Amino acid sequence: MAVITLLTDFGLLDGYPGVMKGVIWKIAPGAQIADISHSLKPQNILQGAIVLVQTAPYFPPGTIHIAVVDPGVGTQRRPIGLHLGEHYFIGPDNGLFTLVLERAEDQSAPIQLVHLNQSKYWLPEISHVFHGRDIFAPAAAHLAAGIPLTDLGTPISDPIRLEIPKPMRTSNGWSGEVIYIDHFGNLTTNLHTGHLESAKEVTISIKGVKINGLVSTFGERLPGTLVALLDSSGSFAISLVNGSAAQYLKVRVGDKVEVSINS
Amino acid sequence: MAVITLLTDFGLLDGYPGVMKGVIWKIAPGAQIADISHSLKPQNILQGAIVLVQTAPYFPPGTIHIAVVDPGVGTQRRPIGLHLGEHYFIGPDNGLFTLVLERAEDQSAPIQLVHLNQSKYWLPEISHVFHGRDIFAPAAAHLAAGIPLTDLGTPISDPIRLEIPKPMRTSNGWSGEVIYIDHFGNLTTNLHTGHLESAKEVTISIKGVKINGLVSTFGERLPGTLVALLDSSGSFAISLVNGSAAQYLKVRVGDKVEVSINS
Amino acid sequence: MAVITLLTDFGLLDGYPGVMKGVIWKIAPGAQIADISHSLKPQNILQGAIVLVQTAPYFPPGTIHIAVVDPGVGTQRRPIGLHLGEHYFIGPDNGLFTLVLERAEDQSAPIQLVHLNQSKYWLPEISHVFHGRDIFAPAAAHLAAGIPLTDLGTPISDPIRLEIPKPMRTSNGWSGEVIYIDHFGNLTTNLHTGHLESAKEVTISIKGVKINGLVSTFGERLPGTLVALLDSSGSFAISLVNGSAAQYLKVRVGDKVEVSINS
Repeated sequence: MAVITLLTDFGLLDGYPGVMKGVIWKIAPGAQIADISHSLKPQNILQGAIVLVQTAPYFPPGTIHIAVVDPGVGTQRRPIGLHLGEHYFIGPDNGLFTLVLERAEDQSAPIQLVHLNQSKYWLPEISHVFHGRDIFAPAAAHLAAGIPLTDLGTPISDPIRLEIPKPMRTSNGWSGEVIYIDHFGNLTTNLHTGHLESAKEVTISIKGVKINGLVSTFGERLPGTLVALLDSSGSFAISLVNGSAAQYLKVRVGDKVEVSINS
Repeated sequence: MAVITLLTDFGLLDGYPGVMKGVIWKIAPGAQIADISHSLKPQNILQGAIVLVQTAPYFPPGTIHIAVVDPGVGTQRRPIGLHLGEHYFIGPDNGLFTLVLERAEDQSAPIQLVHLNQSKYWLPEISHVFHGRDIFAPAAAHLAAGIPLTDLGTPISDPIRLEIPKPMRTSNGWSGEVIYIDHFGNLTTNLHTGHLESAKEVTISIKGVKINGLVSTFGERLPGTLVALLDSSGSFAISLVNGSAAQYLKVRVGDKVEVSINS
Repeated sequence: MAVITLLTDFGLLDGYPGVMKGVIWKIAPGAQIADISHSLKPQNILQGAIVLVQTAPYFPPGTIHIAVVDPGVGTQRRPIGLHLGEHYFIGPDNGLFTLVLERAEDQSAPIQLVHLNQSKYWLPEISHVFHGRDIFAPAAAHLAAGIPLTDLGTPISDPIRLEIPKPMRTSNGWSGEVIYIDHFGNLTTNLHTGHLESAKEVTISIKGVKINGLVSTFGERLPGTLVALLDSSGSFAISLVNGSAAQYLKVRVGDKVEVSINS
């Protein structure tokens, strides 16, 4: 049975994600649908791209991921479908798929991109403001029901890509930044395992506070202690044991993180 | 496989909607269940009626919609079941189904209403405060499992109806009001396509601000611009491009909207 | 088809519960998954224990309940599996299962406890911070797919138990406390049916306010009235009709409730 996931900034009040499930089940009655998140900040494409790349790989081969953060809905921005390795992705062409696409490229996975322009696979009436319901959900459902991706649209090779901030080399380490803050107030940076793997000892600076060394897990320090660690996605992160590092440090996405490596 | 939807004001903390799923799966093991919303304002029947009428039609024929906003739980208010065209509805008789019933009447769809008074289709023990779990979920599940609606209760013809505010004719247009505010801060009014279809040019006044003309989609204006448009349900709505019109205008449900038609 | 429930403090932003569904469906493709709550207060084990004991019994026999509130993730705290009567429970050994275990003991239900130490039933790579994804979800999925609980780990008999505050006898009744506050602001106490069943008349004191007598349901009093009643779980609770008792009385978990019985 096909698995479909939903990731949007639609919120939980209005029933917009529920409507997408209705549309899907009309076309692909047995589809199993999982909500990833509907609480992305409105219009925040980068946040959506990060949640998508961190969650999608855990789903079974053949899973179809619908992602909708769509400030350009109703304009010329294209609806697209992506086949990246073992997974499919459906949504607006605005950079939301940048990170899953980059990872597929890094892994030399098979890649196929289409402009979803075959309106017979959409709802009969298309609003200008809710393509999640009218285009993306039905397209994903037809894919789940066995229509090949290449029947849903025509090939493209120029998807929009987000500019993701990259860490910079410094004299004794890296200068990165906070790119994501989770529900617990953990700070995810744009530094990851690769940047630190040869490092024996590091000192981290953020908002004028220094953290010495990495821990493996929260339990190595007392509650209320600020720690740096590699998180469950292999990213370099800063946390407050049993608390919120974001609140404690008053950090926002985009704030700088300096890592000095004493190797 | 039967599809069941859940719409409540139960919130997401306590597991009340989850419990309803357990009750359903005990009676109708394979039912596919979609959450519409559990974030309705506590006791806000009008908000529930609006979300229900906007979401229900997108589900497959035969879908059973459970809706529970129930300030009168445990009193003499009746539990009811409705068969409206291709869909079923289950919940308290307090006006929550006014809009789906009106639409079925407008469409001359087949209509059947019952008072759910056959307690053999309820849980064995009925609390005075959680009929969602004890009456509505089991009744819907028995319906999903093949029991006819008419076995679940006795016919009625006098369901409670909400007084929904209606727009009024003015010398040069309509005076309506905001009846719903969504997650994005879009303002839905009680005016819809029918009120405006012959209008070439309109001027909208809300909270002392004037908006000239309608747009088809947000992308026609710059971010931060106030626009009026027909939303994804065909209702006349006011939005702020890439922002919240509700916050910008400090609007609440019930605030007036004046439309001058220059046709 | 196996039913699995999820109860966590992971929140709804980051997609952590969604990831667990992906992991489950890779191992047990047809599993039906219900979210109980992901909005528990971070690290609040007592809150999790209460929601779990109030929701689990409504699910079908054989249901597997995954519960994760896990301040000790990555430390020596054990991952455990419990077979309690007709249900299974999977999660950290930190007291989260105290109340479901106590109830199974009270009911003399069959009880089996194991330390989940068979890593072949985990994901291949285990992070130090997300055992919900790496250990609990795959263990539950293998159970759903037919692996016996006793194959997932070795028997234990010393699970961690929370100290749940117990009510105390007073000269003319009971002194209890608020142990849970729900979405509506209803106050659940640690007093239940058993403490009050012989009582004809009671007077309740909380935060200097007195309530005379119990009602059966909210509808017996006018909106805005403070009432005491037995809630849908048989617990003694205090509510404000059509409002929030928690806001009205400015109550927090742990605040005292005195009941004088005039029998």
